[in-house]
Amino acid sequence: MSEIETEELSLSDIYNLSLKVFTKNGCNGNNATALSKIVHDAERDGSLSHGLFRIPGYVASLRSGKVKGDAEPVIDNSLPSVISIDGNYGFAPYALEKGLPYLSNSAEQLGIAIMKITNTFHFAALWPETEFLANKGLVGIACTAAKPMVAPAGAKKAFFGTNPISFAWPRIGETPIVFDMATSRLAMGDVQIAARDGHQLPDGTGLGPNGEPTNNPKDVIKGVLLPFGGYKGSAISLMVELLSAGLTGDNFSYEAGEKDNNDGGPPKGGELVIAISPKLVAGNNWEKHTLDFIKKLKELEGIRIPGERRHKNRFNTGLRKINKEMLQKVRNLL
Amino acid sequence: MSEIETEELSLSDIYNLSLKVFTKNGCNGNNATALSKIVHDAERDGSLSHGLFRIPGYVASLRSGKVKGDAEPVIDNSLPSVISIDGNYGFAPYALEKGLPYLSNSAEQLGIAIMKITNTFHFAALWPETEFLANKGLVGIACTAAKPMVAPAGAKKAFFGTNPISFAWPRIGETPIVFDMATSRLAMGDVQIAARDGHQLPDGTGLGPNGEPTNNPKDVIKGVLLPFGGYKGSAISLMVELLSAGLTGDNFSYEAGEKDNNDGGPPKGGELVIAISPKLVAGNNWEKHTLDFIKKLKELEGIRIPGERRHKNRFNTGLRKINKEMLQKVRNLL
Repeated sequence: MSEIETEELSLSDIYNLSLKVFTKNGCNGNNATALSKIVHDAERDGSLSHGLFRIPGYVASLRSGKVKGDAEPVIDNSLPSVISIDGNYGFAPYALEKGLPYLSNSAEQLGIAIMKITNTFHFAALWPETEFLANKGLVGIACTAAKPMVAPAGAKKAFFGTNPISFAWPRIGETPIVFDMATSRLAMGDVQIAARDGHQLPDGTGLGPNGEPTNNPKDVIKGVLLPFGGYKGSAISLMVELLSAGLTGDNFSYEAGEKDNNDGGPPKGGELVIAISPKLVAGNNWEKHTLDFIKKLKELEGIRIPGERRHKNRFNTGLRKINKEMLQKVRNLL
Repeated sequence: MSEIETEELSLSDIYNLSLKVFTKNGCNGNNATALSKIVHDAERDGSLSHGLFRIPGYVASLRSGKVKGDAEPVIDNSLPSVISIDGNYGFAPYALEKGLPYLSNSAEQLGIAIMKITNTFHFAALWPETEFLANKGLVGIACTAAKPMVAPAGAKKAFFGTNPISFAWPRIGETPIVFDMATSRLAMGDVQIAARDGHQLPDGTGLGPNGEPTNNPKDVIKGVLLPFGGYKGSAISLMVELLSAGLTGDNFSYEAGEKDNNDGGPPKGGELVIAISPKLVAGNNWEKHTLDFIKKLKELEGIRIPGERRHKNRFNTGLRKINKEMLQKVRNLL
């Protein structure tokens, strides 16, 4: 592989560049700052596929008129346990920023609460919302559907999205235990990188254009991705469809695919977030009980605690090496 | 393979035999009927590993004194969204029978509610509880931990249980969409059957006694099972530990393993059940919206809807062919 050219940026440079690009392309202050924080946090954590890399997609959807840069989300919490947010056709981050404090307040008082977000465009990771909850001492679960890219187990055609699910467990005074993963075996981005670099794919990644299993990334790009873990992962992906579209009333992946204008940005969809108070459900000993469990888990050789690699990056406040070609694309949007 | 000898029993024969065995071995009326219904429903649905096959284990735990056959579960619903059931050291089915109506009532009124069950011994499938909720028009999610049998991804020692999770989505006037699956690649019972029949195991089922990947079932029996789907399935299994032990305050799998008397019955543990009202969360169109989705999903060639095979068995009210050797073991407990 050839050396990739990079440029060093501070985290505040990254935030300020994002803010300029979003403002220049039609976002009002609330939307631009919410999006820029998401981009900044992704770059800070080394979650590069959700950082600056996403900006051209966000901007394409602003320019095509699909997404409203000045959308003001509207909250309905007439039922104390159910927070409903109508995003009014904006990007998800501002809707989440507005809604999450309502959700956490409800869960802190009632033990459990649920938030549905509709009429938004989600293009970011899900851990910002589950970690928000975990940082308040709550368990967070979030999921969203997308456009069809994954064949359900047994089938040969795309029907599910890559349907990510995130879960965060709070640790007081420490970063939470958190995972945030697509329910496909690999993301399409990973397949594209394998094609570029001439690598074979692991078994079960995808099917070729005629529906045959293949390890060739070029065939999978013309074909379809598969869920992780066969029938069981496919069941989890189905659950994500039902929770994030069935329970919000917004698009299932197949509907999002039919309706999207394919401008390169995110499709319209819903997101479901559940918050649970371990203090109110498990009682006061919850914290020591689970810390003992995590301690035992970490004693196993070879174990990796979900989220820890990302959180380790977070503690580095220094400069970030940014792909120069990608950075130029972002600057060209100014 | 040699022909297995069977005997034909009606579903009410199965129920009555169960009732006699449980009563004879120290269960009071409420516990005996709750257990017998669980056994009956499993045989009715062809879910054989949770039917009569389980009775010797149930009885072993009654005879060892580990489980109380006359346990009376106590319900605390001082928080309307959180139903807490102390099973008082009985089997889970009676605690569930008592608690589930409180949970469904809360979810119907509030939109979402959670139930934790502690101090019970769970040896049955989880779909009876999630289907109970789906039959009331609610989404049901249930999970429980168990004794350590599964090495977390990357590790070589058993630490997680087979940690099942069940999810049910309601369809009015039809059986729900429902899955109920261990988060291990295979159940240990499947590995034992492969060893008996001389079959190799699929990749990723388990590790041998020295921690090496193997397709030989005899080595896996001496070694450890693996989660389904690598790191991603392992993350789901970790979530099940945290939900069913961290959020209930009852045993994590490693604690259950340390404390159990190994009498052949189930270990003491907790269970977590969440109920959500699609009507209150998604609104009135939820039913048509998801039925359209399921219809589209079923149009895909090769697709299998989770739960449908079991529900098809359910509509057969005729005699069931029961393994004669196993049946004799059950009758010997009278």
